[in-house]
Amino acid sequence: MRPVDLIVKKRDGGVLAPEEIRLLVRDYVGGAIPDYQFAALLMAVFFRGMSAQETAALTEEMIRSGDVLDLSGIKRPLVDKHSTGGVGDKVSLILAPLAASCGLTVPMMSGRSLGHTGGTLDKLESIPGYRTDLPADRFRRALSEVGFAMIGQSASVVPADRLMYALRDVTGTVESIPLITASILSKKFAEGAESLVFDVKCGSGAFMKKRDVARELGNSLVAAARGLGRDAAAVLTDMDQPLGRKVGNFLEIEETVDALRGGGPADLREVTLRLAAWMLVLGGLAPDVKSAERIAGGKLDDGSAWKRFLANVEFQGGDLSVVEDPARGPHARIRRDVPAASDGFVRRIDAHAVGIASVILGAGRSRKEDAVLPGVGIELLAVQGEAVRTGQAVAAVLGEDEAKVEEACRMVAGAYVFCPQREAPASRILEEISG
Amino acid sequence: MRPVDLIVKKRDGGVLAPEEIRLLVRDYVGGAIPDYQFAALLMAVFFRGMSAQETAALTEEMIRSGDVLDLSGIKRPLVDKHSTGGVGDKVSLILAPLAASCGLTVPMMSGRSLGHTGGTLDKLESIPGYRTDLPADRFRRALSEVGFAMIGQSASVVPADRLMYALRDVTGTVESIPLITASILSKKFAEGAESLVFDVKCGSGAFMKKRDVARELGNSLVAAARGLGRDAAAVLTDMDQPLGRKVGNFLEIEETVDALRGGGPADLREVTLRLAAWMLVLGGLAPDVKSAERIAGGKLDDGSAWKRFLANVEFQGGDLSVVEDPARGPHARIRRDVPAASDGFVRRIDAHAVGIASVILGAGRSRKEDAVLPGVGIELLAVQGEAVRTGQAVAAVLGEDEAKVEEACRMVAGAYVFCPQREAPASRILEEISG
Repeated sequence: MRPVDLIVKKRDGGVLAPEEIRLLVRDYVGGAIPDYQFAALLMAVFFRGMSAQETAALTEEMIRSGDVLDLSGIKRPLVDKHSTGGVGDKVSLILAPLAASCGLTVPMMSGRSLGHTGGTLDKLESIPGYRTDLPADRFRRALSEVGFAMIGQSASVVPADRLMYALRDVTGTVESIPLITASILSKKFAEGAESLVFDVKCGSGAFMKKRDVARELGNSLVAAARGLGRDAAAVLTDMDQPLGRKVGNFLEIEETVDALRGGGPADLREVTLRLAAWMLVLGGLAPDVKSAERIAGGKLDDGSAWKRFLANVEFQGGDLSVVEDPARGPHARIRRDVPAASDGFVRRIDAHAVGIASVILGAGRSRKEDAVLPGVGIELLAVQGEAVRTGQAVAAVLGEDEAKVEEACRMVAGAYVFCPQREAPASRILEEISG
Repeated sequence: MRPVDLIVKKRDGGVLAPEEIRLLVRDYVGGAIPDYQFAALLMAVFFRGMSAQETAALTEEMIRSGDVLDLSGIKRPLVDKHSTGGVGDKVSLILAPLAASCGLTVPMMSGRSLGHTGGTLDKLESIPGYRTDLPADRFRRALSEVGFAMIGQSASVVPADRLMYALRDVTGTVESIPLITASILSKKFAEGAESLVFDVKCGSGAFMKKRDVARELGNSLVAAARGLGRDAAAVLTDMDQPLGRKVGNFLEIEETVDALRGGGPADLREVTLRLAAWMLVLGGLAPDVKSAERIAGGKLDDGSAWKRFLANVEFQGGDLSVVEDPARGPHARIRRDVPAASDGFVRRIDAHAVGIASVILGAGRSRKEDAVLPGVGIELLAVQGEAVRTGQAVAAVLGEDEAKVEEACRMVAGAYVFCPQREAPASRILEEISG
């Protein structure tokens, strides 16, 4: 069959056979299928979707396009987490050492900030000296010695995803559930994970604004992972408001340190423990989520996770003194308070607006080429359900540039919604999907 | 707006503004928008369609991409016909001189055979000496002197259509009503037509197999033409069976000559007269289709149309003696009869099978580069409603190659369906759309 026949098959609602998908991806990566045919195929997939089997076949062939990390020497269960990204989402930084301290191995490859959401690599690199570009052998050693490592994706892993993403980005085919699924799964499985927990964020600060779309992605991720013979679970979590109280690279390291020492915001702890629990269940270290959550909570409170984190920072070259005493870390020159506009209670803080404000300050990127500033960001002094008085500081904006601080202050002020009666914060856990 | 934003707008069901469509087409033709973005846009259009206004804007910008013939010096109404193509469809060859003899000017640019359907240019070129590549000034002179001319599309007219069609062909986006509409209209209006009649063929021998799709195309053609301020009408005609009794290049010239002399098959005359009538109505030369049909019938019967045809053949360099005595024209070396498989009546002759048989014989092309043979083809000796006896010749296959004749005979035999009771042929006119 010619490529155009396969495009027409998908266009007309047909199901592509695994060998057809293999041919399309292989020939596209190899250059035999031109961009314009693959673009038409991607748009047809956008409209027609893909079955779990098709998505699994796509993922498999994408993995095959590049190097696959061989972690067979590691005897402990290899479980990783993927988040679809949000504002103030520093869960990975706490979860990886926590899961490792519970007995799992977590081979974590992360991304950088783009759009209004932060990036794990940018946050880690705000720790002076921290290297996220470990070569494969160092990565493997970190996994055996520390139980986890956090690095960027190497260029040799899933080159098909880079090619396809670049094409999707300019052809209006980013927002396709099966394409998103295959992109996520291929990278995670190529990095050596055996099973996966997905944190599918939902709300204004997430890429999936709507619950049904987030659920569809969760289902697709779990079904396609199963189609590849892997175990997986997805947790839909609320990202209508920022997670925790700090947004910004080193600010989130500060909050991570708090959480790893058993403190930090309740919502951050809730999400982290639930995801850790699912990782333990998938890794076979706990019979159910409830008991797994108790195990994880214990490791957070007894300092085991914190110790793992320190071991990782040391292994990856980070300045331990800064982690142990965040006051010594990078901090922005300017700090300006955002006053409450009225008396009452905080009803909601719009995550998207806070995310955009953090990008304006320089914590994130509007273009791939931009550099990020380590010390800038936003502290949420009052969050949902907390009482405030007119003029009281509800947030602090930290920046390096007066005009940008001004602009960010306006955005953060606009993100706050107040109400006369207290509304108790709901759980951040919206749904759980385990196939 | 960036091209990707316009792709997303269409993808999500939005209506593109005329200036947005203008930008997309202009920048695609100019090379600023790459094939892969345009391919994604085309696929989005395939799924979302286009309004009549969008289609009109697309057509307008496609016309603007190349030369537009200036026929303002011609005072008589400029009306043309476009057929979506079929098997045995020699209507243009009769219709153009007929309409000219009624007082219209017909600036006809036609295509070549591709797939199972024939091409007007190939048929004309089976007349020894006939040239279809008149330069613009000769074309204009033919129009003033003869009232019509039949030429191929020059490379400088609507280059956007050639670019877009080549891309559609390899990206599975050929079968899109608005894209087909813009392709047809842009060429016809660029060649100088003021108003247009469409012969939308429907059935096994047509590109539109289904009535509702044919109707959709007819509506789209008429609505988009009106959106451009032009008058138009569409006639849906039956192409489930070949039109007339002869299929092949010079064979169809023979039948054209019969029809122009007032004879020929009834179905061919019916379709030709109805289309001529609509042309006269659109050109303002008759108040309604009924009276227009009478005028056209008269010009066919009194030899006026025939005289115009002869004048055209002379003007375009064709051998008049061959037209006046078709026995002197090109004829295939081998002639083989196809016997009836049973007693009874012809119920149906599958147009698609006959079309494919004619391509096998060399009357049409399976690839653009193929040459066509002038004398080969199929004569249908018995057609729908006619009585046959087992073994009687129902068709004759004319070819140059024994093996191909054999194969074509099998296909033609298979195309015939017999029945015990006579079923009278229905009208070829299925529907008429005049906006």
